[in-house]
Amino acid sequence: MNHDPERIRKQIEFSQEIDKEKSIIRQNYIADGSRRENDTEHAWHMAVMALILSEYANEPVDLLKTVSMILIHDLVEIDAGDTYAYDEDGKQTQRQRELAAADRIFNILPEDQAAKFRALWDEFEERKTPEARFARTMDNFQPAMLNAASGGISWEEHKVRLSSVLKRNEISPEGSAALWDYSRENFIMPYVKKGIITDDSRDRS
Amino acid sequence: MNHDPERIRKQIEFSQEIDKEKSIIRQNYIADGSRRENDTEHAWHMAVMALILSEYANEPVDLLKTVSMILIHDLVEIDAGDTYAYDEDGKQTQRQRELAAADRIFNILPEDQAAKFRALWDEFEERKTPEARFARTMDNFQPAMLNAASGGISWEEHKVRLSSVLKRNEISPEGSAALWDYSRENFIMPYVKKGIITDDSRDRS
Repeated sequence: MNHDPERIRKQIEFSQEIDKEKSIIRQNYIADGSRRENDTEHAWHMAVMALILSEYANEPVDLLKTVSMILIHDLVEIDAGDTYAYDEDGKQTQRQRELAAADRIFNILPEDQAAKFRALWDEFEERKTPEARFARTMDNFQPAMLNAASGGISWEEHKVRLSSVLKRNEISPEGSAALWDYSRENFIMPYVKKGIITDDSRDRS
Repeated sequence: MNHDPERIRKQIEFSQEIDKEKSIIRQNYIADGSRRENDTEHAWHMAVMALILSEYANEPVDLLKTVSMILIHDLVEIDAGDTYAYDEDGKQTQRQRELAAADRIFNILPEDQAAKFRALWDEFEERKTPEARFARTMDNFQPAMLNAASGGISWEEHKVRLSSVLKRNEISPEGSAALWDYSRENFIMPYVKKGIITDDSRDRS
């Protein structure tokens, strides 16, 4: 047990700071379509789904590492905001905004824990490990599931094209070929058939 | 990789079902006092805090088990609703309502995963392992932190008495004496001094 008062003060300050992630609103809706989802709901949902679906990862994953990464992957959005997957302008500055956020937010923690969380977040961003690749697949799979469940509202609102969905999901099969197949067949293609996601595949050929 | 279509169908049905936990509203407010917290935000917050604060557990804990338990501990409230910690009438029927919910909700999963999640939830309820005891401490520590951060709104709304807070927290030192000490000194007692939590300790002596 560690009773260093400065250490626990920093840990509690961080714990209070991250409460702000509950107010970062995403573009996708919750399943019943009643409202948009926030970042902490997204992270919780992805984490529980990772516990259930890790058997579909292409490579074996350390589940504690995967879940930890998932739980903290959007903390930087407290400062940087949510950048919609299909917002090309926002994505230009996203990396810089998120790096500055990571510097500030993780460093509220005691040095050893700040380094550990930062390393986890860097790993998620870099996708060089099985855990990161699987976590990134889940980061696409969970909102696709909710977009489908909520009747495609978010895809419709943003007039999303199939080429954009496929581009976003280029990395999905790296973490789990099985889950990407499932997502494409069950979440995405039915909304292409309905015309809610615009099929622009012919424009590109 | 498992491509049993019936297995993944059940896993995705469960993943969609648990989205409803985002609409289960708790009594405590988020830190800025702007609105009440929901169950999934609470579980996410507790899980991240467990990653940071597990060094204060009385006994060493398996962190994956602890975090998994925390992530799923309130799923039963999808059917049973949130029972406020100081609602004595609600608590009479809580156990029965939650058992029925556990039977329904976990059994959406394939049999092996249903059994695993049910065992985790039972373990959390029974508090017989270090992981369960620590998770239960966090289940009191996180809302106390938010109640304090939000100016004690929830304590004030419910005219909460110190004896009730102490009774709820009887189990807190079993998981972490250090965190219970911290919570009492930094979250609870300042609101007793302010008169927002009613000091009824003299009535009982």
